[in-house]
Amino acid sequence: MVLVSPRNPLNIGAAARAMANFGFPSLAVVAPFAPRWREARSAVGAPDVLGAAQQAETLGEAVGKCTLVVGTGTRTHRRPEQPGLRLDALAALLSAELERGGRAALVFGPEKHGLTRDALSRCHFLVEIPTDPRQPSMNLGQAVAVCLYELSRTEEKVDARESPPAAIGATARADSATVDRLGALIEQTMTASGYSPAMMHAANRHDLELLLRRIALDPGDAQRALGLFRRILWRIKHPRAEPPVDKPQ
Amino acid sequence: MVLVSPRNPLNIGAAARAMANFGFPSLAVVAPFAPRWREARSAVGAPDVLGAAQQAETLGEAVGKCTLVVGTGTRTHRRPEQPGLRLDALAALLSAELERGGRAALVFGPEKHGLTRDALSRCHFLVEIPTDPRQPSMNLGQAVAVCLYELSRTEEKVDARESPPAAIGATARADSATVDRLGALIEQTMTASGYSPAMMHAANRHDLELLLRRIALDPGDAQRALGLFRRILWRIKHPRAEPPVDKPQ
Repeated sequence: MVLVSPRNPLNIGAAARAMANFGFPSLAVVAPFAPRWREARSAVGAPDVLGAAQQAETLGEAVGKCTLVVGTGTRTHRRPEQPGLRLDALAALLSAELERGGRAALVFGPEKHGLTRDALSRCHFLVEIPTDPRQPSMNLGQAVAVCLYELSRTEEKVDARESPPAAIGATARADSATVDRLGALIEQTMTASGYSPAMMHAANRHDLELLLRRIALDPGDAQRALGLFRRILWRIKHPRAEPPVDKPQ
Repeated sequence: MVLVSPRNPLNIGAAARAMANFGFPSLAVVAPFAPRWREARSAVGAPDVLGAAQQAETLGEAVGKCTLVVGTGTRTHRRPEQPGLRLDALAALLSAELERGGRAALVFGPEKHGLTRDALSRCHFLVEIPTDPRQPSMNLGQAVAVCLYELSRTEEKVDARESPPAAIGATARADSATVDRLGALIEQTMTASGYSPAMMHAANRHDLELLLRRIALDPGDAQRALGLFRRILWRIKHPRAEPPVDKPQ
């Protein structure tokens, strides 16, 4: 489980407590507000999961080894850019991923506004907690509890498992760090090739992140694409040189 | 929804927020710690549901008009005295009750220890949130969120509705206040008849409460039993008098 920029030590503690309640031991925290994070970890009775939590500077770093990244949110007016997922279909999706040897992360945004569009662009799916449209915004600790409760029922669902969404496919996916490297490389290539004016770079990068998650490259595909774009970029920068023969991957 | 003796204004606020999130407008609070209750109600951004909350001195008073009372808890070592109910079967149970014109209450205990044995003796069922046995105790606000999330999915379950537990039967049930009146009357009768030594009265009363919920009297049965025990009690107290002819119910 990943918490992005949590602010309130009580919410951090509550999220960790729900993890202990429902048997989820592994927490990563992205860019927490340092004093509050220290406060949450040193609180009397702080769950073990906080002491063992990983800390990361960016969401990309936190989910680097994950092959499936699922963001969370409640219903908003904004139309999500990722495929949506019902909360009660999440367990089937995650267990299918784990069964084929992948690693999955469930990501929660900060208290005020949830995950940003940028953070969501690192997610393959957005799972929405079905709240009342008149009062959609949930407390962070409660949102975590509801999601982990639903996930903890996975075993009971094995008998009547819903099919995972079609988009997820049957093959393994490249991990998130590899996809990030590919994204960075393609972006450099776009810039180097003069693909678009500078003012479009951020929007292009965002669309690229979405695309890379949508197409769900398998590890071999990702390596091939990395090799290709390395070669393209090298060629653009060295238009007249002989191509390197043994360029390491 | 009923909160019994909540202590922490943050938890009260979180419970109310979850009610708003999942569309449950009606809250009663039993014997709250007065200063903290005022604090919770007057908090900035306190949900409307707190302003509209009913206040009661006892659980019996709060659920007086209810025909089905369900307590909540997490798994403990103590073997419950009520029939247990899986959380994912709760929606079917409650909607069956509402469909036949009954009123239902879901009751949450105070933060530290949950519902007492005495409070639970007023409940027809105990629903247990399936937490990890190594860390069973949940935060109050999170427990409320998990239960109401599960309940809010009722509509989706109509198609594949599980049968309500057999014990609940198909007929309407007497409301809780009527059952309480009957319990008090039977207790007086036990005392007046010298049924057991004084030191046994509390235990007898407790067993009686459990029994009265287990047998799930319908409204007519309850009136008949009330009439019967009034008559018995009158006879015990007036062993030599002529019985009253028109004793009002």
